Amino acid sequence: MTEVKAYAATSSTADLAPLDIKRRDTTTQDVEIDILYCGVCHSDIHTARNDWKGSKYPVVPGHEIIGRVLSVGDNVSKFKEGDLVGVGCMVDSCQTCNSCKEDLEQYCENGATFTYNSPDKHLGGQTYGGYSEKVVVDEKFVLKVPENIDLKAAAPLLCAGITTWSPLRHWKVKKGDKVGVIGLGGLGHMGVKFAHALGAHVVMITTSPSKTSDAKELGADEVLISKDSEQMKAHANSFDFLLNTIPVGHDTNPYIGLLKRDASMVMVGAIEPLDPIHGGGLIAGRKRIAGSIIGGIKETQEMLDFCGEHNIVSDIEMIKMQDINNAYERIIKSDVKYRFVIDMKSLKES
Amino acid sequence: MTEVKAYAATSSTADLAPLDIKRRDTTTQDVEIDILYCGVCHSDIHTARNDWKGSKYPVVPGHEIIGRVLSVGDNVSKFKEGDLVGVGCMVDSCQTCNSCKEDLEQYCENGATFTYNSPDKHLGGQTYGGYSEKVVVDEKFVLKVPENIDLKAAAPLLCAGITTWSPLRHWKVKKGDKVGVIGLGGLGHMGVKFAHALGAHVVMITTSPSKTSDAKELGADEVLISKDSEQMKAHANSFDFLLNTIPVGHDTNPYIGLLKRDASMVMVGAIEPLDPIHGGGLIAGRKRIAGSIIGGIKETQEMLDFCGEHNIVSDIEMIKMQDINNAYERIIKSDVKYRFVIDMKSLKES
Repeated sequence: MTEVKAYAATSSTADLAPLDIKRRDTTTQDVEIDILYCGVCHSDIHTARNDWKGSKYPVVPGHEIIGRVLSVGDNVSKFKEGDLVGVGCMVDSCQTCNSCKEDLEQYCENGATFTYNSPDKHLGGQTYGGYSEKVVVDEKFVLKVPENIDLKAAAPLLCAGITTWSPLRHWKVKKGDKVGVIGLGGLGHMGVKFAHALGAHVVMITTSPSKTSDAKELGADEVLISKDSEQMKAHANSFDFLLNTIPVGHDTNPYIGLLKRDASMVMVGAIEPLDPIHGGGLIAGRKRIAGSIIGGIKETQEMLDFCGEHNIVSDIEMIKMQDINNAYERIIKSDVKYRFVIDMKSLKES
Repeated sequence: MTEVKAYAATSSTADLAPLDIKRRDTTTQDVEIDILYCGVCHSDIHTARNDWKGSKYPVVPGHEIIGRVLSVGDNVSKFKEGDLVGVGCMVDSCQTCNSCKEDLEQYCENGATFTYNSPDKHLGGQTYGGYSEKVVVDEKFVLKVPENIDLKAAAPLLCAGITTWSPLRHWKVKKGDKVGVIGLGGLGHMGVKFAHALGAHVVMITTSPSKTSDAKELGADEVLISKDSEQMKAHANSFDFLLNTIPVGHDTNPYIGLLKRDASMVMVGAIEPLDPIHGGGLIAGRKRIAGSIIGGIKETQEMLDFCGEHNIVSDIEMIKMQDINNAYERIIKSDVKYRFVIDMKSLKES
C-alpha cells in the first residue's frame, strides 16, 4: 500500500482540495498506472456534491483516465511498462453473471465496481478515481490507447465517448441512417463525431441556434432547432435513431414525434424523472424509448481502436488540478467546449 | 347505396339509439357482409363520447365484426357468398407507403381508414362501424374466420386479440420466456391466452388479489400482485417481456424494474400521458419501453388461423343491441369478464 497525492471532496459542500490517499500494492493481475490526464465528467460533480445520495467521503472523482504503465503484476499478459493505457468508469465486476459473460460488465448483475465511490474489494472503504497521481487496476479493466491520437483529448473517450458509442453500435446505426443527436455538450459532441464517422446523416438537435456552426464543424449535416415547431414538423417521423444526451429531466414527447415507425430514442444523460410521456406517441408508430449506460470493456476497446483509425478525440479545454472547483462551476453553466481535461502533472507539481 | 339499421351516438352526451345509415353498393373489389356479432371495445365508448376529441356524429361504433358474406364484387377472389369473415379496426389504407408495403397497414403513413369515425372515401362523411346490420368492405381488409371456433366469442379477436398478439409476435416471445401481462381486462385476458399458447411462462400482474384464480384459469402460471413490494422485489429484473394493457396513464416505473436487461415493456392500452418515467430505470439495464397498436391484416389473419388451430377465443358476455348503454356503464366500472359481444340479430328484430 502506498500513499499518493489526490484531490478530494471531503463533504458535499466542501471544495475539492489536496488529500493523500492509499493505493493498493500491485497484485499479480494488476496494472499500476501513472496518470497523465483525467477528464472531468458531470458525474464527478454529482458524486462530489452527493446529488445522487450515496456518496462516501472522501470522494476522489475522475473516470476518464489516460496514463502510462509503471509496472505490471506477474500474471499480466496484455500490458507492459510504458504502455499507453486508459481506465474508464469501471475497475472490476463479478465476471460470472450473464452480463459479464456477454462482455457487458456495465450491467453486471452483482454490481460492477466503479472507478470511484464504489466499495473497494481490496482495501475496504471506497474506490478512488483519477484525480490522483496513479491508480492500480485489474488488467481486465485497463484499455489500450492508440499512440497516434492526441492523448489529453483522448481522456473523455473513456466515459463521454463510450457512452455515446455503445448505443450507436448496439442499435446498429449505419451508413445513410438519419440520426439525431439531442443536446450539444460533452456527450452530444462525441455523439455527433461518432455518428458522422459511422456514415450517418447527422442532425444536431438543440434549443440554441447559436450552436449551429459548432455543430457543423463537429460533423453534423443539419441542425434542427427544437424550439422551432415548423422545423420540428418538417422532420416528423423521419429519424432512424435518436441519441438523447440531455442531462436532466425534460419533455421527450417532441422528440418521440421525430422518430420513424419502429425507431428508438436512447437516453444516455437523464438519470432522473422525465416529463410525462404520452402513450399515444409510442403506440401510434410502434416507437421505442430506451436507456444505455457507458459500455463494456470489449466495446470500449473497439471504440478506442476506431478512434485511432479515424483520428477521433474529444474537443477539450485543459486545466490544472488546482482549477477544478472553478471548472465545476463552469460545467454547471455549460460553459465548456466540450470537456475539461486535467493535466495531472499539475498535481504532482503542487 | 342502401339504408341499413344501426345504433349510433348522435352527440357526445346522447345514449346510443337506433338510426338508419347508408352503406355503399358493393364495388368490384368489395365484400358485403351480414353482421352476426360485434364486440364492444373501450374505444367505442371513447369515440361515442368524444373523449379523444375528433368524433363526428353520428358515431356508429364497432370494430370487432364477425359475419357471413352476402355478396362479393366481380374482382373479389378471396371470398364467396356464405363465407365466415371478420372485420377489425381498419377498412382501408393507402397500399403504397412503406408501412402498407410491409403489411403494417395500421401504421399507414397516409393514414389508414378506420372502421368507424374515419373519413369515408366512398360516400364522404365518416365510416360507420359494426353496430349495424351489414357492412361493405374492400376484400383486402376482410379476414377469414375459422369455422371451428365459437363465432360470437371470436369477435373480440379482431381488436383485443390482434392488439395483444401483434406485440407478442413482433417482440418474438417464445417458449420458456418469462412474460408478464399487466392488467386483466379485455386486452389482458387475451394477452394471457396468447402468451400461454406461445409457450411462455406467463405471469399475470395485477393490483387485485381477487383476480388470481381467474388469471390462472386463463393460462397464467403465476400471479404477481403489483401492490406487494416484496413480491415485486422478488421478480425484479427477471422478465423477458412485459405487455402493459392498463388503459389509462399510470406509474410504469415499478414495471420497468421487473424487466431484464435489454427487455421491453410494450404499451397497448394507455393512449394518454404516463406518469414520469425515471431515466435511471431505463439506463441502468438498457431497458426499453415501446408502444404497439392493433396489427396488420396479414398478421391478423395469422392470429385467426392460430386461434383456429389452438381453439382460442375471448371470454365474453353476450348482450342485445338494446343493452349497449348499460354495457358501456359496466365496462367503465370494469364489470365484465372480459368482453361484451352484441348479438346483432337483436338489431334486426328491433
